[in-house]
Amino acid sequence: MLSDLPVPTDPRVLVDYRNADDAGVFIVGDMGLVQTVDFFTPIVDDPEAYGRIAAANSISDVYAMGGRPITALAIAAFPSKNFDPAIVKAIFAGGYSVLRESGVALLGGHTVQDTEIKFGYAVTGLVAPDAVWTNAGAKVGDRLVITKAIGTGVIATAGKFGRTDEATIAAAIASMQRTNREAAEVLLRHPGRVHGCTDVTGFGLAGHACEMATASAVRLEIAVDAVPLLAGARALALGNRTGGMVNNRAHFGDAVDVGPLPDDLAALAFDPQTSGGLLVSLDDAIADVVVSELRDAGLEAASIGQVTEANGAARVALR
Amino acid sequence: MLSDLPVPTDPRVLVDYRNADDAGVFIVGDMGLVQTVDFFTPIVDDPEAYGRIAAANSISDVYAMGGRPITALAIAAFPSKNFDPAIVKAIFAGGYSVLRESGVALLGGHTVQDTEIKFGYAVTGLVAPDAVWTNAGAKVGDRLVITKAIGTGVIATAGKFGRTDEATIAAAIASMQRTNREAAEVLLRHPGRVHGCTDVTGFGLAGHACEMATASAVRLEIAVDAVPLLAGARALALGNRTGGMVNNRAHFGDAVDVGPLPDDLAALAFDPQTSGGLLVSLDDAIADVVVSELRDAGLEAASIGQVTEANGAARVALR
Repeated sequence: MLSDLPVPTDPRVLVDYRNADDAGVFIVGDMGLVQTVDFFTPIVDDPEAYGRIAAANSISDVYAMGGRPITALAIAAFPSKNFDPAIVKAIFAGGYSVLRESGVALLGGHTVQDTEIKFGYAVTGLVAPDAVWTNAGAKVGDRLVITKAIGTGVIATAGKFGRTDEATIAAAIASMQRTNREAAEVLLRHPGRVHGCTDVTGFGLAGHACEMATASAVRLEIAVDAVPLLAGARALALGNRTGGMVNNRAHFGDAVDVGPLPDDLAALAFDPQTSGGLLVSLDDAIADVVVSELRDAGLEAASIGQVTEANGAARVALR
Repeated sequence: MLSDLPVPTDPRVLVDYRNADDAGVFIVGDMGLVQTVDFFTPIVDDPEAYGRIAAANSISDVYAMGGRPITALAIAAFPSKNFDPAIVKAIFAGGYSVLRESGVALLGGHTVQDTEIKFGYAVTGLVAPDAVWTNAGAKVGDRLVITKAIGTGVIATAGKFGRTDEATIAAAIASMQRTNREAAEVLLRHPGRVHGCTDVTGFGLAGHACEMATASAVRLEIAVDAVPLLAGARALALGNRTGGMVNNRAHFGDAVDVGPLPDDLAALAFDPQTSGGLLVSLDDAIADVVVSELRDAGLEAASIGQVTEANGAARVALR
């Protein structure tokens, strides 16, 4: 929606809507403000979990830029009639608990009446201007690491239609409720070694990999069988394709070489994630150490590929 | 919606959702970040004017705190079908033009599909932590000044139902499209003299006066016949009461002594404003100079009352 706007020249703007990045960065003095906004309709039945997921999802964009979130403004829409106020309270309380755990101050918010529930946050963080992780920094020879299992889209869809069990849904909720704070903390222990970073959300792993490849003018090669999958995700992949998955494949398909990958894994590569993990392009020499540290932090992290030279139309190769 | 949340103790938070203020203030180093979010359904037919009004309205909360807006994130909802994309472009372009005029960088945004159009911004500004204008600082003996004419609610309603002419609507739109930047710049020339400030928006003049009176533990006496009115507003006041006006009167009525005020003026005192002016409580000695400077800046400003000691239930007296 913003791409038609004129392009201003403002030296204070380090990253904005033209970069397909997770958040904008604005320089104030010797500091960078990282800013992002996201809100969406409920993807789980439990209102408190929905609030927690919305908060984790919103602040994770700040972590994906190498920043530390500091403040949030709530954005909410609820029906005004025939709607239990306890649900609204539970959503706000769930989101608030994640903000507090993450050291983020809730400064205010705006709520409107709507036929459909929507909830999320505008989040601000701080980052050193010379240490911003963008989509544009991936280098040939880098290793690709992911910090969470994928499959939240197909599991949420299966849950909506009663096609999976409680334990599968609970594990997906637990993953979505978790912020990328611990992952970012591990990465920040290795200054200068993270060359590119994004969080895996609505475009799916393949879509976000495409954006990184394009911004960095490189090719990403991903071994999909090395990508951690949420329990149940593979079995549910073909029977629970979402509109988002179809859109992602239509939008990014030409730039993704799917090769002889089985259909279910190819589907999961385009599955839209909510509050997904970080996709990191980092110095190959440190990659195994970083993956090990991420796992020690309790994250389902894995080394999933490498960065090679751009050649031809396919910016991402799935193997 | 936020009032049920627990109250954290965070020394970095100078102002948050508990203060009924226009924006939150968070301290970073020696700076204060002023943050606010607002979005709403269209109140005028012209999409570009709607975008301009949404932007002016959102950034004016920062001016009302004594701050200078620096960044914005767009928040938008549009129907996905049977909707002309040119309308979306015009809304974004209108908002963008006001942001640029005000020196505000647009860093990003989030758009969702919705049956009903909604548009607005989350805005961040900077303020010196020791120079924040809040609702809580009005002092006995202060003069009350307003910086814009009121009546946008009744005129927008009349316009919606074809009960007024183009010129009346155009004047209201011009007023709503104008930010409070020039008003704030005049006030900032008099450091230490502004004791309390808020912008007049959804609660109407009487409602926002009530919030200032309560936060400052004082009584505000307002001469309604001194309040500038938009052309046509008085004649339209009784025939175009909005739900918001009725709600404001129900919510704040007990705390407002309306006395023998004519019905049309009483109605206008509770008329919800969009992108209204500043209501300022300032040092009486400087008030006439400030009003004169505001008028020199082309604003329809006026001295409208004074701050007296709190006595009894009525926190606001309309005369």
